[in-house]
Amino acid sequence: MIIVMKKGATKEDVHSVEERIREWGYSAHTIYGAERTVVGAVGVPEADKARYMESLEAMPCVEKVIAILRPYKFASREYHPEGTVVDVNGIPVGGKQVVIMAGPCTVETYEQTWESAVACHAAGATILRGGAYKPSTSPYSFQGHGEEGLKILRDVADKLGMRVVTEVMDPRNVELVCRYADILQIGTRNMQNYDLLREVGRVRTPVLLKRGMWARIEEWMQAAEYILVGGNPNVILCERGIRTFETHTRNTLDLSAVPAVKELSHLPIIVDPSQGTGKRSLVEAMSKAAIAAGADGLLIEVHPHPDQALKDGAQSLTCEGFCNLMRNLRPVVEAVGRTL
Amino acid sequence: MIIVMKKGATKEDVHSVEERIREWGYSAHTIYGAERTVVGAVGVPEADKARYMESLEAMPCVEKVIAILRPYKFASREYHPEGTVVDVNGIPVGGKQVVIMAGPCTVETYEQTWESAVACHAAGATILRGGAYKPSTSPYSFQGHGEEGLKILRDVADKLGMRVVTEVMDPRNVELVCRYADILQIGTRNMQNYDLLREVGRVRTPVLLKRGMWARIEEWMQAAEYILVGGNPNVILCERGIRTFETHTRNTLDLSAVPAVKELSHLPIIVDPSQGTGKRSLVEAMSKAAIAAGADGLLIEVHPHPDQALKDGAQSLTCEGFCNLMRNLRPVVEAVGRTL
Amino acid sequence: MIIVMKKGATKEDVHSVEERIREWGYSAHTIYGAERTVVGAVGVPEADKARYMESLEAMPCVEKVIAILRPYKFASREYHPEGTVVDVNGIPVGGKQVVIMAGPCTVETYEQTWESAVACHAAGATILRGGAYKPSTSPYSFQGHGEEGLKILRDVADKLGMRVVTEVMDPRNVELVCRYADILQIGTRNMQNYDLLREVGRVRTPVLLKRGMWARIEEWMQAAEYILVGGNPNVILCERGIRTFETHTRNTLDLSAVPAVKELSHLPIIVDPSQGTGKRSLVEAMSKAAIAAGADGLLIEVHPHPDQALKDGAQSLTCEGFCNLMRNLRPVVEAVGRTL
Amino acid sequence: MIIVMKKGATKEDVHSVEERIREWGYSAHTIYGAERTVVGAVGVPEADKARYMESLEAMPCVEKVIAILRPYKFASREYHPEGTVVDVNGIPVGGKQVVIMAGPCTVETYEQTWESAVACHAAGATILRGGAYKPSTSPYSFQGHGEEGLKILRDVADKLGMRVVTEVMDPRNVELVCRYADILQIGTRNMQNYDLLREVGRVRTPVLLKRGMWARIEEWMQAAEYILVGGNPNVILCERGIRTFETHTRNTLDLSAVPAVKELSHLPIIVDPSQGTGKRSLVEAMSKAAIAAGADGLLIEVHPHPDQALKDGAQSLTCEGFCNLMRNLRPVVEAVGRTL
Repeated sequence: MIIVMKKGATKEDVHSVEERIREWGYSAHTIYGAERTVVGAVGVPEADKARYMESLEAMPCVEKVIAILRPYKFASREYHPEGTVVDVNGIPVGGKQVVIMAGPCTVETYEQTWESAVACHAAGATILRGGAYKPSTSPYSFQGHGEEGLKILRDVADKLGMRVVTEVMDPRNVELVCRYADILQIGTRNMQNYDLLREVGRVRTPVLLKRGMWARIEEWMQAAEYILVGGNPNVILCERGIRTFETHTRNTLDLSAVPAVKELSHLPIIVDPSQGTGKRSLVEAMSKAAIAAGADGLLIEVHPHPDQALKDGAQSLTCEGFCNLMRNLRPVVEAVGRTL
Repeated sequence: MIIVMKKGATKEDVHSVEERIREWGYSAHTIYGAERTVVGAVGVPEADKARYMESLEAMPCVEKVIAILRPYKFASREYHPEGTVVDVNGIPVGGKQVVIMAGPCTVETYEQTWESAVACHAAGATILRGGAYKPSTSPYSFQGHGEEGLKILRDVADKLGMRVVTEVMDPRNVELVCRYADILQIGTRNMQNYDLLREVGRVRTPVLLKRGMWARIEEWMQAAEYILVGGNPNVILCERGIRTFETHTRNTLDLSAVPAVKELSHLPIIVDPSQGTGKRSLVEAMSKAAIAAGADGLLIEVHPHPDQALKDGAQSLTCEGFCNLMRNLRPVVEAVGRTL
Repeated sequence: MIIVMKKGATKEDVHSVEERIREWGYSAHTIYGAERTVVGAVGVPEADKARYMESLEAMPCVEKVIAILRPYKFASREYHPEGTVVDVNGIPVGGKQVVIMAGPCTVETYEQTWESAVACHAAGATILRGGAYKPSTSPYSFQGHGEEGLKILRDVADKLGMRVVTEVMDPRNVELVCRYADILQIGTRNMQNYDLLREVGRVRTPVLLKRGMWARIEEWMQAAEYILVGGNPNVILCERGIRTFETHTRNTLDLSAVPAVKELSHLPIIVDPSQGTGKRSLVEAMSKAAIAAGADGLLIEVHPHPDQALKDGAQSLTCEGFCNLMRNLRPVVEAVGRTL
Repeated sequence: MIIVMKKGATKEDVHSVEERIREWGYSAHTIYGAERTVVGAVGVPEADKARYMESLEAMPCVEKVIAILRPYKFASREYHPEGTVVDVNGIPVGGKQVVIMAGPCTVETYEQTWESAVACHAAGATILRGGAYKPSTSPYSFQGHGEEGLKILRDVADKLGMRVVTEVMDPRNVELVCRYADILQIGTRNMQNYDLLREVGRVRTPVLLKRGMWARIEEWMQAAEYILVGGNPNVILCERGIRTFETHTRNTLDLSAVPAVKELSHLPIIVDPSQGTGKRSLVEAMSKAAIAAGADGLLIEVHPHPDQALKDGAQSLTCEGFCNLMRNLRPVVEAVGRTL
């Protein structure tokens, strides 16, 4: 940590900062500049830094406190230089093979789920997505079928030999969803729902942690840290677009987060171009771009009849559209030295 | 709803849209323009609109669907033209009197809470704030004392004749927090935590709904709608800053949301200048500005010794600073025809 | 400047940084931490910092370079602790008196300008605003009357004893606009039009520098620095809203910029609630809030018949509306110890 | 245009809107809904729409006016369904071949430009980039060598058989820069510098129009419209990142703008991953992603010795890094059916 003193700070002010650092058991090194004095605090561990920074920042003689190291540990590549491969009941996420998770936004009926899943599976998807608990901006939108939806997903996936990824929103449902799902999805709105993060940190089921639409990469890493600290090492990150001033697309898909996360962290990262753009016609281009940027997989919404979908039809591919996407994706996957 | 057809849409396409609208039981009126045809759907109630819009938007012949009315009902001023006054166990929020909620960011000890509360009370605050459950970006930051903290808050408030506002983060804790608090605070990160919104919709304790740092005003109103639809009419809104590209302040306090919400909704709205700016030195100016903009109250962090605070010391006022703020605030309160 | 070395940087790497700093004539102080080494560069003047930071940042062994001081000098309050009062041909901006600049968005006709100006003047405005050169998002919108508009403004203002503020967009027009205007307005889109900034830095006519809708406060100060360095000390800042994800308002008026700028800089700052909100119904509330926050003045659009305006009618007040605003503003002005 | 009347608007109000539309010579079609009345205006040409919308929006009985068609014409794909190929003195931009523009951020010396150009040319770049007039946030940063820089660029490019792209900032310099450059670059800060857009609309030299860091895609298209309306059909768009809350990268590269622009417009679009990320280590991944998303080319900063660069060294590739990028890019280019 670097503590920048206010202009006009006295020697006593500087000593009060140095002393506080030493009281905590760390060493302090001061540089007296022409206009500002800065104090470096050496030896403070990650786990204590946030607290100490706040404390120093509140001293009237301090202008600001600057963190030198990342405020997370277990999620960082420094802690774990090798890339992590998460095992989803036999399907590796984060390895050479690009993983495709596809299916309907929401489980509406058995038939719709089955029809979508068969098409996705035939085209090469190995993990079936589908919402049983749906976060909806409006209380009047469809909220999902709950456990009934989970049963449909599990049954359809098992018949096709697929795995299941589905969202859990309520900490009280983590145990229930674990019974049906191979991956627990934490949605964008819940990226900083700490009680939920703590709850999924207690199980060993892999967690797909979507980026909060307002979250800086650093905060996303800290959300992952909550799960890792809790004891669950199986975290997969998912870039799904951030909120910006642009209104043509539903969100702004931040693909530079893919190589950035690869530098900062050892965790696998996939991309959701359906949520990321909100427009069916942009999904294929952004799927190719995501893989070219280094993503370990994709999460794509596919509906047999998008115009009859209860949610997100405008961004869902048809089964045929998904099939085309997969065909056109393959050369890009191979161009970056991976397999599909 | 206005449905804009794609360029080149055929008569059959237009009919397919009209028919779908009529099947749902509403009437369709089509305007054939030179370059685009638009269909107006008349009679669709709020409760069905979100669903129908998504469905129409997914039709391949449709370019976009535009909502004409607000996507919320009970939160709207059209539904309830008079401003709502929420009764917080005898203290009205939303009336002529401006309400000041103040206290420490976090309940650390009995002494610290007491010292802060006494000063706040003496200066004119009637509602004591303080966190027992704290949402923290880092898993290594202080997470709050839980029920112990609630007991301290209640005890201190009772001794001083104050009310208590405190955050609830986990749907499992709503009942517990209701036992101690006069107002349940929903924090910014939980504005779209729908299970939590549903849970606080089931009780009658007033709810302070903070704006999500990523939330458009319309989405904030829809979050309030969740609580109102659930049956709890006692919702107080709180503007606390949104996330923008500006880094000098912690958030960008959007004061224009105050008069905007007053037009759109009947619910009372207060402002949090502590979180909104993240800087102690800006709190007084923004408090005055909030009241001048028409806010019904303020939520302010006060700590007897900010540099020893476990959280948010840099944005906490000292007891003396709060006292000065209250003194300087009074003329502004009176200038806009209200009382303190 | 603080230079943070990459993890694993060698002693040689550190020396290469230290040497470079010393070659430039400054001193280097290194702190060896447990995980990172940081080098402090002492004595680098503002005028050289930007350049040196970029150079150090590009070294492969350097992780990042952190500036300790603000990257501007003449605009800073440290350089000039007293607040600056800009003299606009006898009207002080930045003193105890709040200054109201009002008038039509655009000069359309002599009659419209006259009608608007008479009403503004009667209600207490002392500076007449009006666009002769209009920046328009669409090439098909009205672009202003140019010099004809300037003549109308000057003539109307002179008859009423008012001053004139009007926008200059093209460096080739600075001299021309100076002949008619008392204040040169630099619009939001031109805040980083450096050739224009340099040109208005060469004259002594006061400059109203609007904040770029994308600009951090620090970048705004650097734009002011361009003008000050050029030799024109008469800079007035104007907060006019920044671009965020919120679409209910045209921009998000960042009133916290007012007290923030007052801390960072000695320059006067006014607020434009018309552009800032884009909605007539929000202008009065935000005018009061701006003054309560400490603004030195307001810039307000007033049109005798907004529904016949060629531009920005929706955010223009009627003459009557402006009159009401001024009446309701007075108590707030007095509440913060200023005069109107 | 769809005009939404305010709740409670009377028949007279509706007639006043209809009449105004008819006075302008267009037809009006009204739909009376249960809670709102909407009026459709049919036949309004693009060139008049912006003006009429503003006028209607300012009527007190009108809630809002919604545009149905895009507010630009010559830039739209509807106007020109075939993709445009811009001829840069023999090099087609927008065709099957991906075009690489590379070189130093700034022309510093002849040697540095030559060294960079030779490496870029050898690796496959055909257009040499380099700044002679540099927009710099700080007045103390290097501002470019002006005409001297242009001469160096021209000479180096001619010797290697390359074309030249370089920025013009001042309308007074357009003619001068045209004498040396094959493409005139309009930088991000100048996307809405209308006098400059008008000036480059008067020549026939191709224009590289960078997206404003604050600009919605629609506004970017309108900026292109200024140039096209002016008479210059040779516009190439360049996505270079937008400003968001994310601070890890310098900008947020919005790659979804690439397929979005391809749908909306016939103009070619390239991507600048150097400015877009601000980090050398992310440039290669984002270059691949840009091509996979459908971009027609790339603009990349290459410096023989980035740590001695006067500007933007941290985001410049070394000559070797650029050579690697080009090698790794080729398979991706081919995977999407294009050539390098």
